[in-house]
Amino acid sequence: MTQDSTSAELYAAYTDLLQKAADLNYSSAVLGWDQEVYMPPKGADMRGRQQATLASMAHELLTSNEYGYLLKQLNAVSAELSDTERRNVALSIEDFEKNKKLSPDFIEELSRLTSECFNNWIAARKANAFSLFAPSLSRMIAIKRKQAELYGYTCHPYDALLDDYEKGANVVMLDALLSKLKQQLPILLNKIKAAPQVSEDCFHQHFPRQQQWDFGIDVLKQMGFDFEAGRQDYAEHPFTTSFSPADVRITTRVDENNYASMLWSCIHEGGHGLYEQGLPMEQYGLPLGSAVSLSIHESQSRLWENSIGRSLGLWQYFFPKLQAYFPAQLENVTATDFFKAANRVAPSLIRTEADELTYHFHVMIRYEIEKALIEGSLDPKDLPAKWNELYQTYLGISPHDDKTGVLQDVHWSHGSFGYFPTYSLGSFYAAQLFDQAKKDIPGLQEQISNGELSTLLQWLRTNIHQYGRRYNSEELCERITGQKLDTEFFMRYAADKYKQVYGLE
Amino acid sequence: MTQDSTSAELYAAYTDLLQKAADLNYSSAVLGWDQEVYMPPKGADMRGRQQATLASMAHELLTSNEYGYLLKQLNAVSAELSDTERRNVALSIEDFEKNKKLSPDFIEELSRLTSECFNNWIAARKANAFSLFAPSLSRMIAIKRKQAELYGYTCHPYDALLDDYEKGANVVMLDALLSKLKQQLPILLNKIKAAPQVSEDCFHQHFPRQQQWDFGIDVLKQMGFDFEAGRQDYAEHPFTTSFSPADVRITTRVDENNYASMLWSCIHEGGHGLYEQGLPMEQYGLPLGSAVSLSIHESQSRLWENSIGRSLGLWQYFFPKLQAYFPAQLENVTATDFFKAANRVAPSLIRTEADELTYHFHVMIRYEIEKALIEGSLDPKDLPAKWNELYQTYLGISPHDDKTGVLQDVHWSHGSFGYFPTYSLGSFYAAQLFDQAKKDIPGLQEQISNGELSTLLQWLRTNIHQYGRRYNSEELCERITGQKLDTEFFMRYAADKYKQVYGLE
Repeated sequence: MTQDSTSAELYAAYTDLLQKAADLNYSSAVLGWDQEVYMPPKGADMRGRQQATLASMAHELLTSNEYGYLLKQLNAVSAELSDTERRNVALSIEDFEKNKKLSPDFIEELSRLTSECFNNWIAARKANAFSLFAPSLSRMIAIKRKQAELYGYTCHPYDALLDDYEKGANVVMLDALLSKLKQQLPILLNKIKAAPQVSEDCFHQHFPRQQQWDFGIDVLKQMGFDFEAGRQDYAEHPFTTSFSPADVRITTRVDENNYASMLWSCIHEGGHGLYEQGLPMEQYGLPLGSAVSLSIHESQSRLWENSIGRSLGLWQYFFPKLQAYFPAQLENVTATDFFKAANRVAPSLIRTEADELTYHFHVMIRYEIEKALIEGSLDPKDLPAKWNELYQTYLGISPHDDKTGVLQDVHWSHGSFGYFPTYSLGSFYAAQLFDQAKKDIPGLQEQISNGELSTLLQWLRTNIHQYGRRYNSEELCERITGQKLDTEFFMRYAADKYKQVYGLE
Repeated sequence: MTQDSTSAELYAAYTDLLQKAADLNYSSAVLGWDQEVYMPPKGADMRGRQQATLASMAHELLTSNEYGYLLKQLNAVSAELSDTERRNVALSIEDFEKNKKLSPDFIEELSRLTSECFNNWIAARKANAFSLFAPSLSRMIAIKRKQAELYGYTCHPYDALLDDYEKGANVVMLDALLSKLKQQLPILLNKIKAAPQVSEDCFHQHFPRQQQWDFGIDVLKQMGFDFEAGRQDYAEHPFTTSFSPADVRITTRVDENNYASMLWSCIHEGGHGLYEQGLPMEQYGLPLGSAVSLSIHESQSRLWENSIGRSLGLWQYFFPKLQAYFPAQLENVTATDFFKAANRVAPSLIRTEADELTYHFHVMIRYEIEKALIEGSLDPKDLPAKWNELYQTYLGISPHDDKTGVLQDVHWSHGSFGYFPTYSLGSFYAAQLFDQAKKDIPGLQEQISNGELSTLLQWLRTNIHQYGRRYNSEELCERITGQKLDTEFFMRYAADKYKQVYGLE
């Protein structure tokens, strides 16, 4: 581009470059999907280097002087750009400035350490011994602290890391939200503890794999997941990935002796998938073609999984269909029994198996630990003791080994410090957004009871999906609901639901 | 690299660059595999652009001035390199000079036209009307003629195109080989025609999908295909692709009413897969880490499919196992019946369904047509008439429509002129190599009858796979068998086999 290029020419060159980087990143996503779903074990080494090459070529493009100069030129003519174009460019300038803060050497070191750390985490889990993970985790924490310094921050170094997953989030805001919940949740939990307990025995029977799968597909279709623009496969740890809005892959797992294992995971990933399918194709590779943030992504999966997927209304529609798949297993079960079983509350050790309420304590524990590790007030060696102590404090139970304790999550081995809080934020956003959807869509609850989910999907498309990164999480929430994120919505949603489940006052 | 770089430094930089290009190309292969095997239909457009980006970035690397300068420097110090290194560099210089002959604009135009041509071929097949394919095919032929001019050639423009698939092959050599076969094959075919015919009715029963699949996997394991370093999936048109020697993907199809459809396709692709798994991992991305040529690749698939997979010996071992899978269907069939059915000879219209003998006429027809199209002596408009005339001449039958005639193969829509002859060359190499294997391995036939295939695989690994592109097809053949490629081996192999099948004198 020369000094005389028009704004249209500049914008076209900018689009080209970003879409080329997107091609590399989406290609890498295909390799990543295959790795989790189909790759034979010996393929791992070369797959690692192929993904590293794609990632480094994308990073090279996105931090190149050519790109920087292009952004500068576009910024100078931003008055000539459309609103959409201007917003893309503004976000790209933010991204560029952030990307430039990490040198290629730093990224390579981080990538090398991540690989080492992940392998040691696998080995440590196998041996059920945190000590095998501790040395590389210490090095990981050190490099993450360095990363926080390179990014820069105003209040707490953890803020800098949070920003990678949730732009604008910080310790002050999270402390405020979570401490409110920490006061209110125990009150509800105590009421539940005092009430007659519900049984989830109906899940623990033999449910053949193929029928589980088929019913899951039925539910996904009813949700509006487009199987012409996506598919579902098996994976050990369910996840969603996307190669464009027209090719979105969700994954699920099946436990033939526990029906709950697949069903809600399937709906959860379906919620993520619907978001990806709803992003605007014409913004492919550009900021407005990407999801806002992890928390809004998680709000979509949790809204479908919890607000819809664990509601009595939905099971009034779906339970007879489920019974047709499993007549023997569900002969003496009612839709209400099934709804109650799906919402049973009980403290447990494993985050991914937790109920909707105690889940947030799992997140709080990790959040407190991460803050302490990053600010240097907790020595990684003392992690298991701290972990067990916090579980005792918050959940009244304590893991008997490292595997069901401090080694249960992959996140730290990936260097993902600052990720966990987005899970709780996702729940809070889900409750607040669903509350608004009920106000905006007359008769929504009745629609859900009739299995009509398309109005809700359309509402999500119109209010959230179509915008990509146009608004950040907070702006989006305020635009849609008229107010900032507030845990009151989640607490009210929970109070309503558990009144039904446990017959609370 | 500076003027003072050591040869080791230069070679390391060269390896880096080539492996980076390989990472891009293998990544593109993953995308291509997914496209054929799992991709949902709406994913096609973006997948196309993602693959184009990867291909153009690889081409950019492999034609860059930086790379050219590196090769020049390496060439200057080639005396300091090891034999292996020197051979890699020499081959890379050849590749570089060839790649440079096509400008990025030309490649883009070719890629655009290929996409158009392929779509029109699909549409023409659907409508069963060659006329819908003719205009873009004409443009494709024009650009392939231009490509031949850009590459340059000594005798015939078709030689330049052949070179893309089979380095060193040319019209003079092919005419000599094929005309010999054209004289000898009809004599054998006439003898077969005069003999009592064999039946393949045993294939045309109901064979359930899952059992077919399971037996196919058993056979692949017995062949030595490493499922830790590869896998098999379903695809409409079976193919083999590789992302490194440690991750090789083969595909197969199943027709529940024709067992033959899957079985030999599975063994054929398994043969390709074994070659890819046998390439030297330490030469990843370098010429000596790649397959020699299409004909040698095809020699591997055909050796396994035909010399082994359609031999009486192998079925003496495998037939009882197959009967255990299909006791009802194969109750009244013997190993000998099965062997004979697998080798039934009859002229047919579809190349991919042809027997081992008439197959070569399908290739000859395409070869004659391609030569004529490229030299300009055949107008594309007259293609269907020419096609039908040649089928009448060579096979005594004529297609009743375009779909079973001139539109049956995808190759021309891909611009792959010069590809078909490698199929026949592959058969000839297979026969000559297998003849040598029998000489080199005492008791090989007996081993095969006992299902012991590992000595043969080891022989192929040692004599062929491990070398990558170290020797070209002809050198490799001469090194192993002590003489140039000669169709005599194929004719002798055929005479032996059909004596058994048809009880010829």
